[in-house]
Amino acid sequence: MSAEKLDKSKTLFLRKKHVGPSCKIFFSQDPIKIVKAKGQYMYDENGQRYLDCINNVAHVGHCHPDVVQAGAEQMGTLNTNARFLHDNLVLYAQRLQATLPPALSVCYFVNSGNSRNLCPPLNRSSEANDLALRLARNFTGHDDIITLENAYHGHVSSLIDISPYKHHQLPDAELRPSVHVVSAAPGGVHVNQTVHSRIHPFVYTPTSELAMLTNSGGGGYLGTEIQNLFQSSAQAPSPDVYRGRYRADHPDPAAAYADDVRELIDRAHEKGRKIAAFIAESLQSCGGQVVPPAGYFQQVAAHVRRAGGVVIADEVQVGFGRVGSHFWAFQLQGADFVPDIVTMGKPIGNGHPMSCVVTTAEVAQAFASSGMEYFNTFGGNPVSCAIGLAVLDVIGKEDLQGNAVRVGRRLSDLLEALKRKHPLIGDVRGRGLFIGVELVKDRLTLTPATAEAQEVIYKLKEEKILLSADGPHRNVLKFKPPMCFTPEDAELVAAKLDPVLTELEEVLGLKPLDVPNVGKDRSKRTLSDEHQQHHDGIGAPHPASAPKRIRKETNSRITPAAD
Amino acid sequence: MSAEKLDKSKTLFLRKKHVGPSCKIFFSQDPIKIVKAKGQYMYDENGQRYLDCINNVAHVGHCHPDVVQAGAEQMGTLNTNARFLHDNLVLYAQRLQATLPPALSVCYFVNSGNSRNLCPPLNRSSEANDLALRLARNFTGHDDIITLENAYHGHVSSLIDISPYKHHQLPDAELRPSVHVVSAAPGGVHVNQTVHSRIHPFVYTPTSELAMLTNSGGGGYLGTEIQNLFQSSAQAPSPDVYRGRYRADHPDPAAAYADDVRELIDRAHEKGRKIAAFIAESLQSCGGQVVPPAGYFQQVAAHVRRAGGVVIADEVQVGFGRVGSHFWAFQLQGADFVPDIVTMGKPIGNGHPMSCVVTTAEVAQAFASSGMEYFNTFGGNPVSCAIGLAVLDVIGKEDLQGNAVRVGRRLSDLLEALKRKHPLIGDVRGRGLFIGVELVKDRLTLTPATAEAQEVIYKLKEEKILLSADGPHRNVLKFKPPMCFTPEDAELVAAKLDPVLTELEEVLGLKPLDVPNVGKDRSKRTLSDEHQQHHDGIGAPHPASAPKRIRKETNSRITPAAD
Repeated sequence: MSAEKLDKSKTLFLRKKHVGPSCKIFFSQDPIKIVKAKGQYMYDENGQRYLDCINNVAHVGHCHPDVVQAGAEQMGTLNTNARFLHDNLVLYAQRLQATLPPALSVCYFVNSGNSRNLCPPLNRSSEANDLALRLARNFTGHDDIITLENAYHGHVSSLIDISPYKHHQLPDAELRPSVHVVSAAPGGVHVNQTVHSRIHPFVYTPTSELAMLTNSGGGGYLGTEIQNLFQSSAQAPSPDVYRGRYRADHPDPAAAYADDVRELIDRAHEKGRKIAAFIAESLQSCGGQVVPPAGYFQQVAAHVRRAGGVVIADEVQVGFGRVGSHFWAFQLQGADFVPDIVTMGKPIGNGHPMSCVVTTAEVAQAFASSGMEYFNTFGGNPVSCAIGLAVLDVIGKEDLQGNAVRVGRRLSDLLEALKRKHPLIGDVRGRGLFIGVELVKDRLTLTPATAEAQEVIYKLKEEKILLSADGPHRNVLKFKPPMCFTPEDAELVAAKLDPVLTELEEVLGLKPLDVPNVGKDRSKRTLSDEHQQHHDGIGAPHPASAPKRIRKETNSRITPAAD
Repeated sequence: MSAEKLDKSKTLFLRKKHVGPSCKIFFSQDPIKIVKAKGQYMYDENGQRYLDCINNVAHVGHCHPDVVQAGAEQMGTLNTNARFLHDNLVLYAQRLQATLPPALSVCYFVNSGNSRNLCPPLNRSSEANDLALRLARNFTGHDDIITLENAYHGHVSSLIDISPYKHHQLPDAELRPSVHVVSAAPGGVHVNQTVHSRIHPFVYTPTSELAMLTNSGGGGYLGTEIQNLFQSSAQAPSPDVYRGRYRADHPDPAAAYADDVRELIDRAHEKGRKIAAFIAESLQSCGGQVVPPAGYFQQVAAHVRRAGGVVIADEVQVGFGRVGSHFWAFQLQGADFVPDIVTMGKPIGNGHPMSCVVTTAEVAQAFASSGMEYFNTFGGNPVSCAIGLAVLDVIGKEDLQGNAVRVGRRLSDLLEALKRKHPLIGDVRGRGLFIGVELVKDRLTLTPATAEAQEVIYKLKEEKILLSADGPHRNVLKFKPPMCFTPEDAELVAAKLDPVLTELEEVLGLKPLDVPNVGKDRSKRTLSDEHQQHHDGIGAPHPASAPKRIRKETNSRITPAAD
């Protein structure tokens, strides 16, 4: 094809030679070369079509002609920085504001997407989330940030960007010299708790102990890494009603998870710390497509605001109508929840690098009063804003929110039907075109079927379907396709998934569940019900036998994960 | 004009309503609305043309048709992330590598431009510089970074991004409680030295003291801000032979400034700290268009490498042929200087958001060996790379490096001639189309003519010329125009600058110097001489009288500064 300029082997050769080896490629054993894309389809160098279930960045469809035209025209007219007045900037800000509650009226335009390091929980950051934390700290005069377990928005802000190491993998030898110092510190926290706070999320880790931890004994690189990691940050449990600490059988998981946040705040206060912000993805994405129980954010917001903090909703992955019923995923919680700051990215420019932070006039004014100028070379340039406007136009003109509702429902119905047949599917959850399918070896113990999830991804690739697996155990199949996804696309994926699951279950010795008419299921139970039943009681005995012939080294292969 | 969609007053109204007030606009008292641009010219809503001397981002000229076409075509074909194989990525990496010394062979593509906070020295950061520091720390296993005074690359990495406050403006009350703690610390540094290390660059400020400083007494926000600011960072004096500690009359300023770095390293070692990297702009840009003396980087590199550290050249402002004689500004130092890591941004995509880090195979391999994946949603996408390739093509096809040599020489000759006439011009320096003109009220005391520099900018705006003033005292007129700048453009600026300087000198009571034939000067002395004469001895008596009628509040107005 004309779009291919080099033989694939030459492309691979040059990539190995000139591109950082830390920049992984999908399906590294047999990577795909994509030369063009249209709508929900991508094409390789041989013209082979792939159904794209993963690229939420190509929000209104790959290479949408309206978006391309808007970008091209503006590129040919003017592309400069936001220190000159330009209509595109203000028109886009106005249009964006109109999608949000009135209080969220002031925009900051930045441009980086999320950069990610596949080493949970130190994963993502973006200029947008960094700026959000800065706004919060400035407004409140407080320092400390509460994030969710498994969160991926660079949750200790840009600090994490230079703190790449897995803190829970630090060798004991590196930690031991510091234990004493930490224990000796006034109000000290035991270092083992501290370092394992990801697993024991109730350990509050203020700056002081960690800072001292690095100064004595440990020294050097790892020390400061740890310090950066924990500085002014604490993690609340992920509000995951399938696998989390309060599950679907809990009488009020929203209140219970929110109470955990309140408790974190109390512990912070006991130590003289003050809360600047709570930041969470409105639906956790890389964290495993987690849908928080309704009312959770309202209650968290009450606790956080009582402590003088603000609430930041990260819509980088899930905003712009993907959830179907609402334009923003935080709105799923109800009209009585309004964050103080919202961050946006990925789909905002349909692939063009741009992102945005929206906040209240009060927060913005406080930031301005600090006397700081904020300038971003590329942020809010006329081309980015022209593209952003075109994306909003297409979402409206093509009723992509309505499509997300309709196709999302069809897809989740089909997946629910598969769940009734396949013991490997532990949970189906999500909203609109943001759906997760959690694979487990055992529905009672919830043993993650990690290798099996990777196998599913590889098998579907052979069927020319691009899907991803993510979550803390990498066992959640993750649907976040371009918003022009059709019912037929959904049916194709379900049809291809069915035999792959059967094959894996045979290997595991799992017996199919006794449900007739799979594939023809028209269950009325949809994912738009706020409270899903997560343990439906359908469960044959599950022998804990090891898989017999799962592809070797599955875990080490790079398969599509979140971007 | 058709490109204007709103009345200017409406644009201003919406900007005030919906765009963060910290995002300042040029000429805030009478901002310019730009609706289109071409080459080195920008046009307002009335069709009025402005000569652009400041937008180095529009490197090959605003809206260059080749670049626009390349971007538009690729946008219509494919725009996705770098986890799929694509020829544009590898072809661009290969082309970029060919401009660099062979050892610099591995690229990482990111996309954020520099975001900037106008509060020196805590100013800029970029994904590129952040990644560079991370690569350095990973490779060396060391922690500490040495930067230059007045450096603007987010020199303590992303940490600074959330540390917006001017540390040297902290009220005494906030600092005093911490002094004792710091003084009591083992190997403690007196806090006044610490906090004022920008002014006393020899104070080495390792993490420990600052961390302790925040824990006791100070607490809260400011405490951690200070900590973030100084963590693992030390500042070396800017190698400024005009205003710095070793000047043009010094027998060997390169060695003297490099020795300062060595001394910083020694002090770090005395405290048990280890140097990860020295990072510097190859020519300091926002720091005041500083040209380091030849041989400086070689000697610094020797000291830094002996300490186990690496050298990072920040080419974000000055790369891609702007200096004319070389493609990269670090090459001005001679072929015997090769950095370990180079960062690029701004001009790389002629306004399209992209940036890049290039390093050696060894550094890249060490980063990969850490087991970390590095992924950036937009970095290295096919559209960015198509645009990057087109920019390289145009630089070559239109001989823009040659143009930078020729027009840069003409411009600097004209500015030197103005210097011989105008006592207000203390120094003219730079390379190619990167030139600074430092205004002083007195050539002996070097009193910065800050208000006068701002006045020049405003007066030139009235003449439809866009120029900026920057540097630590904001008294350096800064030329960094699109590379298609012509000799006629240079002559126009010089001609318009001449009477403005005369007028300001009259206000200040400075008498014009006795040089005939100004404007017709054809001096052979050019800025391509490695060692310029900075004190040429031409200087009439300069009464230190205050300006009589300089526009009020000049300092508070936002005039074009570096972006």
